[in-house]
Amino acid sequence: MNILFIGDIVGRVGRRLVERLLPRLVDRHQVDLVVANGENAAAGFGLTADVVRELFDAGIDVLTTGNHVWDKKEVCGFIDDRPRLLRPANYPGQAPGRGCGVFATSAGHKVGIINLEGRVFMSALDCPFRTADRLVEELRRQTPVILVDFHAEATSEKAAMGHYLDGRVSLVVGTHTHVPTADARILPGGTAYQTDAGMTGSRDSVIGIRKELAIEKFLTQMPVKFDIAKKDPWLNGTLCTIDVETGRATDIRIIQEPGE
Amino acid sequence: MNILFIGDIVGRVGRRLVERLLPRLVDRHQVDLVVANGENAAAGFGLTADVVRELFDAGIDVLTTGNHVWDKKEVCGFIDDRPRLLRPANYPGQAPGRGCGVFATSAGHKVGIINLEGRVFMSALDCPFRTADRLVEELRRQTPVILVDFHAEATSEKAAMGHYLDGRVSLVVGTHTHVPTADARILPGGTAYQTDAGMTGSRDSVIGIRKELAIEKFLTQMPVKFDIAKKDPWLNGTLCTIDVETGRATDIRIIQEPGE
Amino acid sequence: MNILFIGDIVGRVGRRLVERLLPRLVDRHQVDLVVANGENAAAGFGLTADVVRELFDAGIDVLTTGNHVWDKKEVCGFIDDRPRLLRPANYPGQAPGRGCGVFATSAGHKVGIINLEGRVFMSALDCPFRTADRLVEELRRQTPVILVDFHAEATSEKAAMGHYLDGRVSLVVGTHTHVPTADARILPGGTAYQTDAGMTGSRDSVIGIRKELAIEKFLTQMPVKFDIAKKDPWLNGTLCTIDVETGRATDIRIIQEPGE
Amino acid sequence: MNILFIGDIVGRVGRRLVERLLPRLVDRHQVDLVVANGENAAAGFGLTADVVRELFDAGIDVLTTGNHVWDKKEVCGFIDDRPRLLRPANYPGQAPGRGCGVFATSAGHKVGIINLEGRVFMSALDCPFRTADRLVEELRRQTPVILVDFHAEATSEKAAMGHYLDGRVSLVVGTHTHVPTADARILPGGTAYQTDAGMTGSRDSVIGIRKELAIEKFLTQMPVKFDIAKKDPWLNGTLCTIDVETGRATDIRIIQEPGE
Ligand SMILES: [Fe+2]
Ligand SMILES: [Fe+2]
Ligand SMILES: [Fe+2]
Ligand SMILES: [Fe+2]
Ligand SMILES: [Fe+2]
Ligand SMILES: [Fe+2]
Ligand SMILES: [Fe+2]
Ligand SMILES: [Fe+2]
Repeated sequence: MNILFIGDIVGRVGRRLVERLLPRLVDRHQVDLVVANGENAAAGFGLTADVVRELFDAGIDVLTTGNHVWDKKEVCGFIDDRPRLLRPANYPGQAPGRGCGVFATSAGHKVGIINLEGRVFMSALDCPFRTADRLVEELRRQTPVILVDFHAEATSEKAAMGHYLDGRVSLVVGTHTHVPTADARILPGGTAYQTDAGMTGSRDSVIGIRKELAIEKFLTQMPVKFDIAKKDPWLNGTLCTIDVETGRATDIRIIQEPGE
Repeated sequence: MNILFIGDIVGRVGRRLVERLLPRLVDRHQVDLVVANGENAAAGFGLTADVVRELFDAGIDVLTTGNHVWDKKEVCGFIDDRPRLLRPANYPGQAPGRGCGVFATSAGHKVGIINLEGRVFMSALDCPFRTADRLVEELRRQTPVILVDFHAEATSEKAAMGHYLDGRVSLVVGTHTHVPTADARILPGGTAYQTDAGMTGSRDSVIGIRKELAIEKFLTQMPVKFDIAKKDPWLNGTLCTIDVETGRATDIRIIQEPGE
Repeated sequence: MNILFIGDIVGRVGRRLVERLLPRLVDRHQVDLVVANGENAAAGFGLTADVVRELFDAGIDVLTTGNHVWDKKEVCGFIDDRPRLLRPANYPGQAPGRGCGVFATSAGHKVGIINLEGRVFMSALDCPFRTADRLVEELRRQTPVILVDFHAEATSEKAAMGHYLDGRVSLVVGTHTHVPTADARILPGGTAYQTDAGMTGSRDSVIGIRKELAIEKFLTQMPVKFDIAKKDPWLNGTLCTIDVETGRATDIRIIQEPGE
Repeated sequence: MNILFIGDIVGRVGRRLVERLLPRLVDRHQVDLVVANGENAAAGFGLTADVVRELFDAGIDVLTTGNHVWDKKEVCGFIDDRPRLLRPANYPGQAPGRGCGVFATSAGHKVGIINLEGRVFMSALDCPFRTADRLVEELRRQTPVILVDFHAEATSEKAAMGHYLDGRVSLVVGTHTHVPTADARILPGGTAYQTDAGMTGSRDSVIGIRKELAIEKFLTQMPVKFDIAKKDPWLNGTLCTIDVETGRATDIRIIQEPGE
C-alpha cells in the first residue's frame, strides 16, 4: 500500500498547488491514501469549514493538524462533525475533535492515523509518548498499518518518537518546522521515519511567510503582521510503501514537486 | 572553488569517521577548503585541545562551533591560540576566541568564514543579523567568498538569515539540529543555502545520543546522563561550488556518507 | 525627594483607581514625581493616545512600559511625540520612541528615568545590562537621581540588575509579573530595590485577567480570549525617598491601596 | 492550627539559619507543623541523605521540593524510604518518591500536603491542575486541612492554581522564584494564598547565588559555575492559621527573619 503524506499546506498558494498536482501524483505513484497536514491552510493560520471542504475535494483523504489548528475559532464549531479532520491527540480531554481514526482505502485496507504534538519549545500538552502508547494499542486491534504525524519543533523529540514507536507503527513523519529533512529511512524495527515532511507553499519565503516580514520581525523584535508568500510554490511530502499484512514499511521517499 | 562543510561532529565515532572518509571526499570532489562544526566533538560536549588537534590533523581546515563550545572548560585556555577554531561571533564582547576569519586555500584563494548563533529557543546573545552585517562588510574588503555557519534551532530564524544575506555571501549553512535538511539550493541573489547540514555521528540514535537514554529523558522528565551512540555512523555535510571572482555560489549539494 | 512608582496599570479599572487615589497619595506622601508602568492600560494590552492622555491628566508624570507596549498599533504613530512616555530602551535601534529621559519635579529637581526589558523567558532584545551602562553614564551627567523600571520575568535577572546598578542609580524597581514582592530594601551601595512593584487592577483575578479565563487556558492549552477582571481593585506601588544631592535612596516602602 | 511554611532553603547558610531560628519561631507562633521546601538545601542543588536528616533534626516535619530535587543523584536511592520528603506529584508515574502525604501534628490533627510543579517556562510534566484535582479528592477523605506547595515560575500559573483550589484546600503557597511576594491573603473561598514564600538563604545575593557570578552569567551568556552566597542570611516563610474542623484558613502572614 502506498500512502502519500503532504507537509503543512500554507495558505491559498499551497491549496492551489495541491489541487493541481495531487491527481498526477496519485496516479504516478499509485497512491492508496492521501494524508496532509492542514494547520496553515487558511491564510497561514488554522482552518475554515470552506478550506477543509476544498482540501477534501482536492483528493486529500485525511487531514492532520498541529498547534495552529485552533487559530480560526470556527474550527471548534465543525471539527466534531469531520471525522477525517484530526487534531493532536494529546490535547487535554475536553478539547473538541479527535486525535486519531481508522480509515479505509478504496481497496478496503484499513489505515490507522494518529496525530500528536510535541512539547519541547511548545505548549504543555499531555505526554505524546504515553498518548502514543495508548492509541497505538487501540488502533492495532483494528489494523497493523498505522501512520503517526508528530507535529513538533525539536529534532530530538521527533527522533525519540520515531525510535519509541519503531516496530509498532508503519510510519512516523514529523511536521511543523516547514523544512523537509533529508533523513527519510526505515528504522531497524521496520517503521519508516522522516523528521519533517516540509511544507506545501512558497519556497521563496521564510517557512511560508513573506521573507521581508520575517526578517523585520527578527531585526526589530516588535510585532509584525505576517502575510503568506506566493512565489515559487513547492509541494513537499513523503511517499511510504507499507506491507498491509505486517504493517511494516518497505520503502520511504521524499516527494518535492515545484509549482511550475 | 569547492568548499566542503561537515555538520556537527559528535564524539569519537564522528571523529573517526571524518578521519577515514575525508581524504577520499576531498579527492573525489576536488575540495579546496574543509570546514566543520566541532561543538560536539569531545564526547558530545565541547572540545578539548587534543580533539582540536586531531580534527585539524584529519584534514579539517577551519572549525566552527555553537552553543556547546564552552562545555569543556579548557577551551577558554586555548581558543585564543587557535585562529582556525571559531566560536559564534555574537557572544558578548568579552568572550574569548574569534567569531570570524579569512583563510586561504592551497591555491591561494581567500575564504571568509563567519560563525553565528541563533537566539530563538537559545541564549540571549547579541543580534546575529546585525553582527552579520558588520562582519560581512569587514570580510568583503578582503574577499567576495564568504561562508556563514548559522548555528540555530528555529527554521524561521535560519531561513531569515539566508534571505537576509542573499547576495552578500556565498553560502549560509545551518547547524545545531543534527538533522540534514532537504532544502539545499541557491537563493535568488546567488547565495547557496541549506537550513541544516546535519551531523556526523551515529544515525541509529537521537541526534547522536543513545536512543534509550533520550527516550528515558522524555518519558521521565528527570535528569538523564547522556552517552554518545556508536552504531551506524554517517557523515553529513554540504558541498558548495563558488565562483572565486564574484563569490556567487554555482552549485550546492548534500553529502551523506555511511561509515560502512 | 519622594518618587511614587505605580505598578502595571491594567485596563479601565486600573486607570479609574489611579485617578481616584493618586491625589491623596501624592498629598499624603509629599510625592515629587509620579512614574507608572502603563503597558496594560488599554484593556490590558498596550496604550492608545486617549489612554495616555487620560493617565497624564490623572497626575502621572512619566509612563514606562514593557513587552506589551506595541500591542495597540497606533502607539507607533504617537510615541515619538510623547517624551514622557517611555518604552524599554533595549529594543533594537530602529524602534520608535525613547527608552529614557530626564524630567524635572515642580521643585526643579532633575530625575533621570530608564526603562529596560529583560530577556529571560522574553524577547531577544539587546543586552539590558550593557544598555543600562550606557544610559546611566549619559544621565548621570545631568543628575544623580536615576530611576530604572526593569520590566522582566525572572527574579534572577531582576536581582542581578539591582546589584549591577547598586551605587549608580537611586532606584531599580521591577515590573511585569503583576505581583508585588516583599523584598523592597536599600542595597549596600545605596540603591533602593524591589523585584516587582505589582500591578494596579483587579486583585480577584489572575494577574489582572478574569480568573475563569486564565484557568481555562491552563486546563485546555487552547487559545482563550482574555478579558480584564474588575472586582477588588488595588493600587500597588513603591514609594522611594532619595537624597537629591547624592542620588542615594534613604527609604523605600511598598504602597498597597484598595479601591474601597 | 498554625502551620509554618519555610521557603526554599539554600545551602548550608540556609540550613544553619533554620536550625538557629526555628525553635523560637515555633514557640513564638505556637506552630503545630513545620513544612519547608528543601530543593536547594545541599549546596544550592538538591538534597543528600545527610542534609535531609539534618533538616528533620532541626525541627522540620515535612520537606517539599521542586525542579532541583533530582540534582544530587543519591536522592533516588533514599527518597522512597523517606515518607516525609515529597517531590512534585506531577512527575510522570515512574518517578521515585511520593508527591503527597497525610501527616499528624503532635495534637493529633491530620494535615494533607501536596507538592506540585508548574509547567510555564519549566519542564513538560503532567498537568498540575488535574493532578491537584485527583490528590485533593484523595486527601479530603482523610482531612479537610490541606497545604499545597506549588513550585512554579510564572505568577499567572500560580495565581490560577490558587483560585482553582480556592475552597478545596487550606493553603496554596508558591515556591521557586526565591523572592517573597507581598500578596498573602485569604481568597474568597477560604483558601490562604501567597504567590511565593521566598527563600531561606543569603539576601545579599541573586536568589541565593553569589551576585558577582550571576551578573557574570548575564553579561557573558557563557557557562558560570554558581556558588552559594553567605552574607546577610534571612529566613522567609509564611504562617497560616487554619480551622481544623473546616479546613478554612483564618489568617496568613509573611515571616521574614534576619540571621542577626
Ligand atoms: Fe505548520
Ligand atoms: Fe505548527
Ligand atoms: Fe551540535
Ligand atoms: Fe548546538
Ligand atoms: Fe504588565
Ligand atoms: Fe509585561
Ligand atoms: Fe528553589
Ligand atoms: Fe526551583
